[in-house]
Amino acid sequence: MKNIVIHGAHDLRVEERDVAHPGPGEVLIEMQRGGICGSDLHYFNHGGFGDVRIREPMILGHEVAGRVAECGEGVEGIEPGQLVAISPSRPCRSCRFCDVGEFHQCLNMRFYGSAMPFPHIQGAFRQSLVVDQAQCAVADGLSPAEAAMAEPLAVVLHATNRLGPLLGQAVLVTGCGPIGILSILAARRAGADLVVATDLGPFPLEMARRAGADITVDAREDPGAMAEFHAEKGRFDALYECSGSAAALRTAIPAMRPGGRIVQVGFGGDMDLPLQAMTAKELRWTGSFRFHGEFFTGVSLMRKGLIEVKPLVTHTFGIDEVDAAFAMAGDRTQAIKAQIDFTAARA
Amino acid sequence: MKNIVIHGAHDLRVEERDVAHPGPGEVLIEMQRGGICGSDLHYFNHGGFGDVRIREPMILGHEVAGRVAECGEGVEGIEPGQLVAISPSRPCRSCRFCDVGEFHQCLNMRFYGSAMPFPHIQGAFRQSLVVDQAQCAVADGLSPAEAAMAEPLAVVLHATNRLGPLLGQAVLVTGCGPIGILSILAARRAGADLVVATDLGPFPLEMARRAGADITVDAREDPGAMAEFHAEKGRFDALYECSGSAAALRTAIPAMRPGGRIVQVGFGGDMDLPLQAMTAKELRWTGSFRFHGEFFTGVSLMRKGLIEVKPLVTHTFGIDEVDAAFAMAGDRTQAIKAQIDFTAARA
Amino acid sequence: MKNIVIHGAHDLRVEERDVAHPGPGEVLIEMQRGGICGSDLHYFNHGGFGDVRIREPMILGHEVAGRVAECGEGVEGIEPGQLVAISPSRPCRSCRFCDVGEFHQCLNMRFYGSAMPFPHIQGAFRQSLVVDQAQCAVADGLSPAEAAMAEPLAVVLHATNRLGPLLGQAVLVTGCGPIGILSILAARRAGADLVVATDLGPFPLEMARRAGADITVDAREDPGAMAEFHAEKGRFDALYECSGSAAALRTAIPAMRPGGRIVQVGFGGDMDLPLQAMTAKELRWTGSFRFHGEFFTGVSLMRKGLIEVKPLVTHTFGIDEVDAAFAMAGDRTQAIKAQIDFTAARA
Amino acid sequence: MKNIVIHGAHDLRVEERDVAHPGPGEVLIEMQRGGICGSDLHYFNHGGFGDVRIREPMILGHEVAGRVAECGEGVEGIEPGQLVAISPSRPCRSCRFCDVGEFHQCLNMRFYGSAMPFPHIQGAFRQSLVVDQAQCAVADGLSPAEAAMAEPLAVVLHATNRLGPLLGQAVLVTGCGPIGILSILAARRAGADLVVATDLGPFPLEMARRAGADITVDAREDPGAMAEFHAEKGRFDALYECSGSAAALRTAIPAMRPGGRIVQVGFGGDMDLPLQAMTAKELRWTGSFRFHGEFFTGVSLMRKGLIEVKPLVTHTFGIDEVDAAFAMAGDRTQAIKAQIDFTAARA
Repeated sequence: MKNIVIHGAHDLRVEERDVAHPGPGEVLIEMQRGGICGSDLHYFNHGGFGDVRIREPMILGHEVAGRVAECGEGVEGIEPGQLVAISPSRPCRSCRFCDVGEFHQCLNMRFYGSAMPFPHIQGAFRQSLVVDQAQCAVADGLSPAEAAMAEPLAVVLHATNRLGPLLGQAVLVTGCGPIGILSILAARRAGADLVVATDLGPFPLEMARRAGADITVDAREDPGAMAEFHAEKGRFDALYECSGSAAALRTAIPAMRPGGRIVQVGFGGDMDLPLQAMTAKELRWTGSFRFHGEFFTGVSLMRKGLIEVKPLVTHTFGIDEVDAAFAMAGDRTQAIKAQIDFTAARA
Repeated sequence: MKNIVIHGAHDLRVEERDVAHPGPGEVLIEMQRGGICGSDLHYFNHGGFGDVRIREPMILGHEVAGRVAECGEGVEGIEPGQLVAISPSRPCRSCRFCDVGEFHQCLNMRFYGSAMPFPHIQGAFRQSLVVDQAQCAVADGLSPAEAAMAEPLAVVLHATNRLGPLLGQAVLVTGCGPIGILSILAARRAGADLVVATDLGPFPLEMARRAGADITVDAREDPGAMAEFHAEKGRFDALYECSGSAAALRTAIPAMRPGGRIVQVGFGGDMDLPLQAMTAKELRWTGSFRFHGEFFTGVSLMRKGLIEVKPLVTHTFGIDEVDAAFAMAGDRTQAIKAQIDFTAARA
Repeated sequence: MKNIVIHGAHDLRVEERDVAHPGPGEVLIEMQRGGICGSDLHYFNHGGFGDVRIREPMILGHEVAGRVAECGEGVEGIEPGQLVAISPSRPCRSCRFCDVGEFHQCLNMRFYGSAMPFPHIQGAFRQSLVVDQAQCAVADGLSPAEAAMAEPLAVVLHATNRLGPLLGQAVLVTGCGPIGILSILAARRAGADLVVATDLGPFPLEMARRAGADITVDAREDPGAMAEFHAEKGRFDALYECSGSAAALRTAIPAMRPGGRIVQVGFGGDMDLPLQAMTAKELRWTGSFRFHGEFFTGVSLMRKGLIEVKPLVTHTFGIDEVDAAFAMAGDRTQAIKAQIDFTAARA
Repeated sequence: MKNIVIHGAHDLRVEERDVAHPGPGEVLIEMQRGGICGSDLHYFNHGGFGDVRIREPMILGHEVAGRVAECGEGVEGIEPGQLVAISPSRPCRSCRFCDVGEFHQCLNMRFYGSAMPFPHIQGAFRQSLVVDQAQCAVADGLSPAEAAMAEPLAVVLHATNRLGPLLGQAVLVTGCGPIGILSILAARRAGADLVVATDLGPFPLEMARRAGADITVDAREDPGAMAEFHAEKGRFDALYECSGSAAALRTAIPAMRPGGRIVQVGFGGDMDLPLQAMTAKELRWTGSFRFHGEFFTGVSLMRKGLIEVKPLVTHTFGIDEVDAAFAMAGDRTQAIKAQIDFTAARA
């Protein structure tokens, strides 16, 4: 079976490996779809980000869905042929953070396709994968493309949980890539009254409007458009910062009301921030990183039609088109989410 | 102008009074619609509830909307002819509870149509009413019937705020009168994944399904139907208890998951509760009483089409049909909300 | 080695069993002290409580401390001879509640000395016990008597966490047995400004004052003493209900301020409660049951001298005096906590 | 009566003004003590900070206590001769933020001695001052020096409320001026298990130890001393950042545990922060600005001996020694809090 392996920046190879067999409590998956994430792109374009660097070949990918091919001993409630979304999060369940229920901060986390520990944690862009049953969210009624959106949706639901209630609130979203668009969907779903989204070009803003944003602002075309939200110490109750850009965050500060909450989902480097204004307004900033149970919550919301992710999957490629897929995934003028179809190449 | 005055149980009179004039910061309202609330019904049927008794004639009513007829000195941002929903909540803004932002618990509250202090606080079922501008929520785009639903909606939004986040959660609603149906709408709006509603007859449950409940249970017809939610220590994350009935609350306890939250919106008397089970499951119960800023939030959500209350107004009566109106308001087999049209009698 | 085994109400036997050996990650404990808890007393006096009944012989006890006798393979950071407090809580770490970090609600919990599942979970009143290292809190600097107080202290710290911040607040404690006295200590430690305690006799109230209560009220002698706290809708921000008595809870309601929080630590049966007043005041009631990480927090606070439990251990008995020990443990006129000294009988 | 008036940087004058008389609900205060705050120092040394600049003469001061000299009509519960701490916070109680209980963010705030609006809000460094009764916290049993510490204590209690519960937690305090030392006292009072404090010289660290810090670190002498807290993703649950220095905050990040909370009390300008690490660790940062009800909470805690501020008042000056007072107030090698004695100059 084929795997998508990164050897270094711009060195992506499709390699054959043997198919494994499921042990007790395990499930063999015949992979259907895999979405390309921003971190996959960082590995592809730069060989990593910050201190995280590729030091040995690593299978990429952590946004995947497939069909159950075989169930190991003791597996119940799931059957061959069923579509499942696969959580890439595998905490140890015994470290200091698992012991307080913060599984996503596990000291021994084995999250698919991560170069952070060494040896690296191999990813899920493979035609065949053995997983624990506990990683599987049954996705009956969803398409494989939708099911493979469970992971980025989980990221956004986790961020939403960190923000707290949004019912009747005014919400700003900065950065309208996949995470930003999902944030618009989540904010709407959680009852936001006003949703404003900003980005730098027409395509992402068009997608933002389709996802339900009331107002979109092109920060490049109309840098003063946010000023209308500055009156009386600011308007927004909550901000999803999805760009990882200091400029976006700085621009948002005067539009936040005192006591407003910011969740940082975008991953930037160091940022120069207006701490005096943030302090005087008593803003609440929190980082958000990965997820845990939100993976299963998201699949359920999609299955009930309460979150509709289909329009986000703008492009699909076969497993033998990985370079084209990665090029498209990073093109913000026409793509939101590019996925790889692991079945297409089998023909 | 006409007023609806209660003199005692089953003694409702329509009386004439003079029209007042708006002072500085005040607005004269030509009343359009007034909804009959459970507490109005208690005054009508029993002369009060618990220790709260009518001791002198009192104008009833606190769910009202009307058109601006005249603006007093200094009033800005509102114009004659505009429809406004009128908040019945008038806290003192200086007592011990106002001083901590719990305005709805004000020691000197003057909430329309309340027999609690003596002399009683006169209500808003009058064809003409002078209010503070701060009580007015502009309702452009809504019908008067919808605008007059702002008050019960505010009650439910306040209850929802006390529950905390509902995104992706399983929610139970017990009691499907107006407050229960609005709770279903609010829970759905706040992102609940599963909404189950219980009541005692087909009509309220039909309305519950129309409001978006996934599953409805007739507690009289199918007393064991909740058992499916008892597995593994219970299923529901949150409960809106809108019936005020101990039986409803007791039946819900085994279906709540450990750590589940209950908001008591229904107003019952003493209740015999299974405290041992509630303690072992660490349920969180909280009362909810009235509202403050949620009144304005609710009007905004209705104006944006995010909460749709129109189907709840099942009956409308003229001001000269008050006895019929109150009879219908209490008939759970065919009515959710009965309103009085204050303009109809003018003809 | 000797074990304290309950065979039925008032049928407590000291029986010999073999000493076990520690496996990998395990520790053999030579027991020093064991405190008698309210649930132990229920088993002794009534053969159980509510639906929980003894159906086969069960070793009692879950408040224990001992010295490390032998370390199994792979155990690090702990040495033979060290005093440790032993957490009786052994969650499965994989069920639905463990998976959301609510380990104390584990569906497969094996809490020492519990008749809840069948076969029962054997307890820790034994001269020798094999435990997981993860259950051990190093208690250097504490006496065995203090270390054995870690369990009830954990119960109270968990309850305090459920109450939320207490800094500068007015706190009421109803019921001054061991849990009530520890609640006074915890409330004081968490910064309560006013602590008032109620019970029914002079001895527990004297202990309450020694623990730091500002005011004590004998509910039998002076039933009207709470009235001074009723003014302006009530005074207390928080209540630890430690009596399990409906009368205590009912009496406290008018003294709670609107929005006040109640944590139910005492375990009563059904209770008839004034729901209308609780709803109108928007009280927040929550149950509290067992604990998880608070066990280790409590040992740390005791070691730093920030919680001083020594005066609570009013009586100590040898392992051959168990009937006398259980009789004393339930005597609220002279005992707070009675402990068994597992070393005394060895002579 | 004499007033301390700032005309510009380093231009402080003592000027005579007439004594006013108390109207209804007002109280005339004969001032006793006034503490010099960091913002007073900024006005004195630089004529302001950030965008806040002195544009007309302004009486300084907002940390004051005095004796009641005369009560206006309707004032009850307070008598001539009583010592009171005076809250400098005067919100409008009707703006958008007052309407949600965030009085300290009032759009029309008249906080003593603030150059922020123009005309400036005159301060309280005057021998005689008329205040609203609602500003007065009776300080029976405290010395005037202690009572004048109520304001900075309120700042710290507000910050503590924003941090949330501290019982049993590990707390870091960066910056040991008056606010840092009070933070140590507050963290200890709220039940912190471990308190570590950092600053740049021996005197503030000596004061930190006297206030109860377990460990103090001189960031200049021993820059690597924090490394011991970096293990396993960091140790501290909470951080009071009281220095306003980006270096202090940056140094603290690796020592914070994932999910740790930071309250920014120190007022710096722009800061370059390690957002990637803060995001991955999901830190929660919040600003804290002024206070509201915490002023009265703090006076109560001082009166009960639960917070002991006496050692912080290191220097006292007469009203005619203002230049010396301001010089000393800024000398971190020997002063924590310098106060002015308004009675001393009357002789």
